[in-house]
Amino acid sequence: MSWLSISPDSDFSIHNLPFGIFSTASQPEPRVGVAIGDQIIDMAFTADMNIFDPFIPYHWRRDVFWQNNLNEFIRMGRPVWQHVRSVLQAELTNPDSVLRQVIEYVLIPQADATMHLPVQIGDYTDFYSSIDHASNVGKMFRDPANALLPNWRHLPVGYHGRASSVVVSGTSIKRPKGQRLPKGDIQPVFETSQRLDFELETAFIVGKDTSLGTSLTTADFDEHVFGMVLLNDWSARDIQQWEYVPLGPFLGKSFGTSISPWVVTMEALAPFRVPGYVQEPAPLTYLEEVSPLPNLDVHLTVSLTPETGGELVISRSNQRYLYWSQAQQLAHHTVNGCNIRVGDLMASGTISGPNRSSWGSLLELSWGGAEPITLASGETRTFLEDGDTVTFRGYAEKDGIRVGFGSVSGQIVS
Amino acid sequence: MSWLSISPDSDFSIHNLPFGIFSTASQPEPRVGVAIGDQIIDMAFTADMNIFDPFIPYHWRRDVFWQNNLNEFIRMGRPVWQHVRSVLQAELTNPDSVLRQVIEYVLIPQADATMHLPVQIGDYTDFYSSIDHASNVGKMFRDPANALLPNWRHLPVGYHGRASSVVVSGTSIKRPKGQRLPKGDIQPVFETSQRLDFELETAFIVGKDTSLGTSLTTADFDEHVFGMVLLNDWSARDIQQWEYVPLGPFLGKSFGTSISPWVVTMEALAPFRVPGYVQEPAPLTYLEEVSPLPNLDVHLTVSLTPETGGELVISRSNQRYLYWSQAQQLAHHTVNGCNIRVGDLMASGTISGPNRSSWGSLLELSWGGAEPITLASGETRTFLEDGDTVTFRGYAEKDGIRVGFGSVSGQIVS
Repeated sequence: MSWLSISPDSDFSIHNLPFGIFSTASQPEPRVGVAIGDQIIDMAFTADMNIFDPFIPYHWRRDVFWQNNLNEFIRMGRPVWQHVRSVLQAELTNPDSVLRQVIEYVLIPQADATMHLPVQIGDYTDFYSSIDHASNVGKMFRDPANALLPNWRHLPVGYHGRASSVVVSGTSIKRPKGQRLPKGDIQPVFETSQRLDFELETAFIVGKDTSLGTSLTTADFDEHVFGMVLLNDWSARDIQQWEYVPLGPFLGKSFGTSISPWVVTMEALAPFRVPGYVQEPAPLTYLEEVSPLPNLDVHLTVSLTPETGGELVISRSNQRYLYWSQAQQLAHHTVNGCNIRVGDLMASGTISGPNRSSWGSLLELSWGGAEPITLASGETRTFLEDGDTVTFRGYAEKDGIRVGFGSVSGQIVS
Repeated sequence: MSWLSISPDSDFSIHNLPFGIFSTASQPEPRVGVAIGDQIIDMAFTADMNIFDPFIPYHWRRDVFWQNNLNEFIRMGRPVWQHVRSVLQAELTNPDSVLRQVIEYVLIPQADATMHLPVQIGDYTDFYSSIDHASNVGKMFRDPANALLPNWRHLPVGYHGRASSVVVSGTSIKRPKGQRLPKGDIQPVFETSQRLDFELETAFIVGKDTSLGTSLTTADFDEHVFGMVLLNDWSARDIQQWEYVPLGPFLGKSFGTSISPWVVTMEALAPFRVPGYVQEPAPLTYLEEVSPLPNLDVHLTVSLTPETGGELVISRSNQRYLYWSQAQQLAHHTVNGCNIRVGDLMASGTISGPNRSSWGSLLELSWGGAEPITLASGETRTFLEDGDTVTFRGYAEKDGIRVGFGSVSGQIVS
């Protein structure tokens, strides 16, 4: 129990302690913070008290915490992540803590802070690891009887995304222009996208560099992954459908990808590990899981709020619906010797569950635009309209312990 | 005519002056250099003489030139690139130049230097803009009668590549492991790639940031692009063929991409501009060229040297064979509002010409492995063997002026 007042339904309990980058009006220099309840612990000032010694001695505090991204902190490695976490937990529970004595200087209300992109992303990879999502897409665009392509059950299919256009939650998303092919035509037209969509995803953030030519196994996951965020892989379906053959998604995705500002550490998520999907056929050796609990029980929701107001949850999914685990994604990504770097972002692909209420995109929820969904206001949607705000939320809960992601949100503008 | 002795057949004439990052045994800190003949002008020391004032005043020289990448210099913008170029040309031709007085301190033999990756790459994009290459691939893997996919003549198809594994010329390339599907089988196997290939490409380097939501036109090319390099898009055909549906190339490419160390500026290449490919049908408005000379006449060669020695030129191609120009690639890439950043790398895709002698990959030269080529040693090749070194060279020449790229080279290791 902390001496700090934390709402029991807060995503940011003492068991969580996610890291982010924030600034305030009075101190506009971005720096590292840790979310607790509805407050932020200003790590730049907290480190002045030398409580993270010997891992982060006093004279390193600027280099580690006065930064506009988490990369330098992450680069210090897992023992340091664990040490800082346990020091903070001890300080927040000890009634005589030094932190408590200076609390008015180091605690910032989240309402007063501006959040920034938490990491400098080297490369952004997007997987396609939900079997229900891949099946739905296959049924719609290919063969309902053979929805999954031949490679799908043998490897976690993925592609490189655009890192430059990854933005933090709250950033507006401008409806993209591009080419699409009107149905039945052979001449494309150029216009703003008419089939703008979200994709409900999570992503993990790489915590340790590898060198080119090195491969990781599923057993290396804990040492090499720092934490997770929610991710909205905004997609212009009409642009994507025309452009993606044969080299994959490009402009149908690269106009914007949103992530939540707080990076929830894998350490905080450890209590919520669950068994993996039963994989048939058994994967090749390099994709074998060493952990009996490779998946995570994280509840995910999608809500849609039109410009006129009235937020409605339109999907309830769960991270555990992933067929390919994050450890398998990491092992696959590096099996060819591809090097990874601190800050790399690796997304799950749309996480759809088995039931319609758990599908993770409007493409699926409206079945390719054929079956509109109804919003709280009574309006209907097949794809996103200007002014619509899409919000994902995510949390894990077990034995009275709650660890959440907060949200990732974005409004469509013309 | 320079007071410095420069071989008339040097790629690095006074008309070129490409930028790179180098270090030496006696001064191991990487820094900016300019190639001239078989020497390097050490820009970090040259700037001490204050000759680039007022654009790069003396007290900025460390921030601009004592860097391990060109990004800070590039970020200064086109007027500065042009100013530095004209100052260097004047100094190298003026017999009374101050540069000449200190030449023993600022000139380093290229043979004594280690070259480094010239830029910090934010995102790496690979296009597919050679009509002969796309047609050859289509004939081999799809329908010989309809080799080009429906979108190909309407937009410059491209995909996101992996930035982390872009390496500088001279770096060995480790043969990747991965999944492939044996012919006729339904169960993939895991092994080292048996169909390792090169792809002859060039790439341009972005010189100016844009903000998310901004689009560039073909007219913006000169202001937004700094220069060009040669690029080898190493490809594992067997891995690629199994993995690439439906989201494009991934592990078949991400094990390594090599670039040449000297960035030849667009300024230096301007005299070699030539008309573009005749495009049928005419492209949509946003892809229309404003320049009557959107293409470049750059001669490109591929040579292969087996471990036993005997270098042989196996392909002679040309940048002018590109159907989609670089300006069209840039306009297309940003038409959806995707932001670009200084240092972004945008590659051409394999540049094949109309004749077999000008094809830019072993896939094409051996027609999918069916028709081996013979090397100088008498050995044959369908795909690359361990120990093989692949070298690309490129140069433009006109009216006695030669501007070249030097080379990009890499050896396959097991």
